[in-house]
Amino acid sequence: MVPIVCFIGRSNSGKTTLLEKIISKMTKRGYRVGTIKHDVHGFDIDKEGKDSWRHKKAGAKTVVVSSSQKTAVIRDVDKELELDQIRFEYLKDVDIVMAEGYKQSKNPKIEVLRKKKNTELICKDDEQLIAVATDAKIDINCPVYDINDADGIADLIEESFIKKTRDDEISVVLMVNDRWVPLKPFIRDFLGGSIKGMINSLKGCKEPVKIEIKIT
Amino acid sequence: MVPIVCFIGRSNSGKTTLLEKIISKMTKRGYRVGTIKHDVHGFDIDKEGKDSWRHKKAGAKTVVVSSSQKTAVIRDVDKELELDQIRFEYLKDVDIVMAEGYKQSKNPKIEVLRKKKNTELICKDDEQLIAVATDAKIDINCPVYDINDADGIADLIEESFIKKTRDDEISVVLMVNDRWVPLKPFIRDFLGGSIKGMINSLKGCKEPVKIEIKIT
Repeated sequence: MVPIVCFIGRSNSGKTTLLEKIISKMTKRGYRVGTIKHDVHGFDIDKEGKDSWRHKKAGAKTVVVSSSQKTAVIRDVDKELELDQIRFEYLKDVDIVMAEGYKQSKNPKIEVLRKKKNTELICKDDEQLIAVATDAKIDINCPVYDINDADGIADLIEESFIKKTRDDEISVVLMVNDRWVPLKPFIRDFLGGSIKGMINSLKGCKEPVKIEIKIT
Repeated sequence: MVPIVCFIGRSNSGKTTLLEKIISKMTKRGYRVGTIKHDVHGFDIDKEGKDSWRHKKAGAKTVVVSSSQKTAVIRDVDKELELDQIRFEYLKDVDIVMAEGYKQSKNPKIEVLRKKKNTELICKDDEQLIAVATDAKIDINCPVYDINDADGIADLIEESFIKKTRDDEISVVLMVNDRWVPLKPFIRDFLGGSIKGMINSLKGCKEPVKIEIKIT
């Protein structure tokens, strides 16, 4: 599974500005970056009058716009998707995911603290806190970076989370009833190998490099 | 797999207007509608200055915005996704998909023809043409609807494509190397049953209602 790092901080602490710089650094280093923005207020992403906007307004639950450069999806949900679900469904083909928000999640976190806005950390006692980016002097038992040190934080993310997968390793990601099920290596190889074997015997499926199955 | 119906027609023939009406009718009849808009020119869906827009501009390959009501995804692609891929990845949880464009696809098609704009059908000899919606008098060997007859076309779609799946039937959707692999009932039951059996024996996976697996 691609790693997720959450950027936590109060409103206007500078999360997006810092993230922009880190995304840019990571992209220049050759990594494919995915991001997740947690929106608490409800958002409006499409442009009034566009065909996709008209489809949605007419009642469509999900609208997709597809071109040769980009795919966009806007989908109604009954309840907020969990990070694991978002990663599984939408963040394939990236090397690292950076999320803005999600302070309740169990993923590694970097807190952004701007002294003009606040002096108290939100994640002070959070075991997942791996670093703080701030312009304040703080006393905390984890690495502290300057709030503008995008290079330093990019180094930290690169070293801690982006490790090369061995080429001969089979990757099996399993979701059951919308929950991610972590697999031990033996189970992963057994399950992946069995399914690959079955698929391999189907017509037109020789040498399956990528297999995706949905069962309901 | 959820059925896809493509609405074909020249620019300004009134595809989106007709689709809006049909989406609205189908939604009022209790169906969950998904739509796909084929964009040939490249599109701009997010709003300048929004956090997700800033993430994308900084270089993110995929950005997701998630709230309790909606999820939006904007993703760079190397080449245009095929309809089967879009359906598999993004159009779960809908009963019918209506696409605007995709005249090359092998899915059922309804052509929209407005006499002010043109008198020649694009899909005249297309075996997938199931109906024409027009304000012109045309001679063609398939049902012809008035261009405003959203109710009639909604009836056609409902009767032809939305059939209730039997409750006891297992649904298995398989994609191999990004291509949809249709399965005969025996293979579907064998593959689905085998995988369900393996998963069922894993910790925390009793009574799997929905199983999704990605193997690479």
